[in-house]
Amino acid sequence: MRIPLDNQSKVPLYRQIENYIREAIQDGSLAAETRLPPTRKLSEQLGVSRITVQNAYLELESDGLIASREGSGTMVLPSIAELQPQQSRQPQWPLWQMAFQEEENQQPLVVQGKTDENNQISFTGVGDPREYPIRELRKAIQDVIRRDESSALSYNDFEGGYLPLRRTISHLLASQGIRTQAESVLITSGSQQALSLICQVLLKPGDVVLVESPTYNLALELFATMQLQIVEIPIDHFGMCVDQLESILQQYHPRLIYTIPNFQNPSGACMSNSRRRELVRLADQYNVAICEDDYVGDLRYDGRSKPALKALDPGGRVLYIGTFSKMLMPGLRVGYVIAEGPVFTQLQTQKRVSDLTTSPFIQRVLYEFVNVGRYQSYIRRSSRLYKQRRDATVRALRKYFGHELEFAIPQGGLFLWLQLPPGISSEELYSCALREGVVFAPGTRFFVEKEDGIQYIRINFAPLILDEIDLGIIGLRKAYLSVRQM
Amino acid sequence: MRIPLDNQSKVPLYRQIENYIREAIQDGSLAAETRLPPTRKLSEQLGVSRITVQNAYLELESDGLIASREGSGTMVLPSIAELQPQQSRQPQWPLWQMAFQEEENQQPLVVQGKTDENNQISFTGVGDPREYPIRELRKAIQDVIRRDESSALSYNDFEGGYLPLRRTISHLLASQGIRTQAESVLITSGSQQALSLICQVLLKPGDVVLVESPTYNLALELFATMQLQIVEIPIDHFGMCVDQLESILQQYHPRLIYTIPNFQNPSGACMSNSRRRELVRLADQYNVAICEDDYVGDLRYDGRSKPALKALDPGGRVLYIGTFSKMLMPGLRVGYVIAEGPVFTQLQTQKRVSDLTTSPFIQRVLYEFVNVGRYQSYIRRSSRLYKQRRDATVRALRKYFGHELEFAIPQGGLFLWLQLPPGISSEELYSCALREGVVFAPGTRFFVEKEDGIQYIRINFAPLILDEIDLGIIGLRKAYLSVRQM
Repeated sequence: MRIPLDNQSKVPLYRQIENYIREAIQDGSLAAETRLPPTRKLSEQLGVSRITVQNAYLELESDGLIASREGSGTMVLPSIAELQPQQSRQPQWPLWQMAFQEEENQQPLVVQGKTDENNQISFTGVGDPREYPIRELRKAIQDVIRRDESSALSYNDFEGGYLPLRRTISHLLASQGIRTQAESVLITSGSQQALSLICQVLLKPGDVVLVESPTYNLALELFATMQLQIVEIPIDHFGMCVDQLESILQQYHPRLIYTIPNFQNPSGACMSNSRRRELVRLADQYNVAICEDDYVGDLRYDGRSKPALKALDPGGRVLYIGTFSKMLMPGLRVGYVIAEGPVFTQLQTQKRVSDLTTSPFIQRVLYEFVNVGRYQSYIRRSSRLYKQRRDATVRALRKYFGHELEFAIPQGGLFLWLQLPPGISSEELYSCALREGVVFAPGTRFFVEKEDGIQYIRINFAPLILDEIDLGIIGLRKAYLSVRQM
Repeated sequence: MRIPLDNQSKVPLYRQIENYIREAIQDGSLAAETRLPPTRKLSEQLGVSRITVQNAYLELESDGLIASREGSGTMVLPSIAELQPQQSRQPQWPLWQMAFQEEENQQPLVVQGKTDENNQISFTGVGDPREYPIRELRKAIQDVIRRDESSALSYNDFEGGYLPLRRTISHLLASQGIRTQAESVLITSGSQQALSLICQVLLKPGDVVLVESPTYNLALELFATMQLQIVEIPIDHFGMCVDQLESILQQYHPRLIYTIPNFQNPSGACMSNSRRRELVRLADQYNVAICEDDYVGDLRYDGRSKPALKALDPGGRVLYIGTFSKMLMPGLRVGYVIAEGPVFTQLQTQKRVSDLTTSPFIQRVLYEFVNVGRYQSYIRRSSRLYKQRRDATVRALRKYFGHELEFAIPQGGLFLWLQLPPGISSEELYSCALREGVVFAPGTRFFVEKEDGIQYIRINFAPLILDEIDLGIIGLRKAYLSVRQM
């Protein structure tokens, strides 16, 4: 136990030890049942006489904070009073912390919910946790532990991740029409890290990033945290309005275009074929990198498949982001970037200095679990399931709202993007719906200027079963009526 | 399958499909046994007639690339020739990639080794993988899966990590004499991420960071990647030479002091009590944040324990980094920062935008596995074991090298820092030792100017059993003799 002792102090050493342990017990950091070191041991560690430590322990014992028992040593006792952590004692922060204090105390965004213990119906989150292949995953974990033993728990895989998993990912993508090599795959801790690494390598504070408007809230938060200048380009039912792109490129000289071409988050839009080609062409002409976030690209329910931007890339233009979070299990936190050319080495370095490597253990489990056949059948099953849920949500919306909400039916993905009538604020609707036990994402989260999203809400239909969807939309209707009466 | 089709092209559609699949098979991205979509399905997906897809498949089949079998669909066949990935076809990279191409093609640092399949004896890495508590860990994993089911695999814990684990960490630290609250603990993906987050929050390119010289190589690589100005302060047997600190603070105005006070990596030095107090005092006076990397702080074999800088912190001055990688299993990739004051919220935000959260699953497993009693007994066991190995290494060095190498005996931790006689280069010794099957870290990795480390090598004695240590030092001696004869 490393207790700070001050030999220059007028406070006797035994009292210093006593005070330190007393405060640690009282503020809860030394928990009940913690075993304190034997007096002989602690006196050696601290370089004081044994009697000094014994005196300290005696004082603590007589105050009922610790107890020595024959054979089982000295233990911290459960505290008598319900002691609160001394949060009132606010220390004087150092000057360098003041800069942070002045920054707006932002409320962290809620990015996920689910039907939780309180019987909330939550149109948020990703897929349906009840559909996660837990049993197969458990088996994969056991296989990995049995086979790799400690090597799965050592450092490893610094060159972009566990090579067999990188190979599997290249095969998965090929089976979807996106050709790549294992050597171009960098494993990341979810797609959020993939985007973060790309930004750190390509952009510095003040640089311009071009995003669809609306777009993924955590991408916006990342860009803001990195102090990038965010320029928005509108989106319609056919995706990014590429006809406006050239003039924006000329005016703002962005260094990165962040796009979600398939079943965009939050709008659900899918970029048309011709716009994809035009986007890749213009980015090339104006020397701008594209970051393609393909988080649910292969979760299509109807309509024709569109090529990934990556598949249109003549080489090294498109940085492609994928993830296992949406399709399998977000709790694993595994995603990837596909990149070719010199930038790949930079991304590797950035990954290494950021966190060395994504858990080698989880990478091996995923490798054990995922193969092309299993992935394809999982996609087929999810598509069937989520298509039903999309249709049920659309039916419920029509039934309970008539034509009061405007929306397009997405051809895939997870999201419905609903436009509220004028005068109904999504933030107010959010608060009212919470009281009805219904959760969704207000549109304000998906724009640089929150106000731009005040008339929109995003509904994730994928995690809920049909009955829940119906109940949820009924709750939403109730909230809607009470907002309208305000 | 999302195949890019160009309706404007003169190449017929069936040929476009055929070519795309052919190339994907030939360059290995479509692996053997991959099931192609049925012709009806693919024609729907691509919006072409079924006969178009059939024609494409027929061409591929007649070339022996795919095979259709009644009932089992169309599969990719194993390739006949050993086809190499077409790496020769180097595309023309876009202009924005040129900046990266010009950067020095750094060889990535090897940060870890172990006694591997090739019977190498590796004085690198962290603890001994053979000592990892695999069985207990497996049980913890099973318990988590059984109890939490899918909730362990969902997103969660955005506010700094899984609260019960944060509480456990605060108790672990208190039992070592470092008082903190669960609310001040931010879970990270290893201590590397902890340091990276701190840098991103506190520093911008060009800012000065003060480091001990030598210091941890991956910290140096991180600082260089972030384009920080790195100022070194020498270290001796009693840790950072704090007597030089004030003038350096006055001259360079660093915004962060990065220090490893206990059993420093690579030098093994442990900072004296008085220097610790002086460091905290000066940092406060000059308004500089301290990052205390305490990666093996409680792994002490002899001598008196020293208080953590964090324990001397009057509030919000010291950002304390800890990890489970060194003591338990690096493959889990879990570490933490302890920070108080407004900076904590910034660190939370930076973590969220960097990768949302460290795997909720791994966090739960760790919580299940770690408690104060188990941790303390693990530390006791490791200390006993590694002390023996340290002593055995010192004995072997004395036996085979006499007094040709200079070194101090560290009171804890993992590392011996050996000074070679003049004229013996650690880089040459490294190459020769590799041929003898012995691996260590040449000192050049631990300085801003590699040349400063040319006379040093770092030996990690912890991962090897006694016989391996003896063999390893014999191999080192052989390599040493052949370098001396050059």
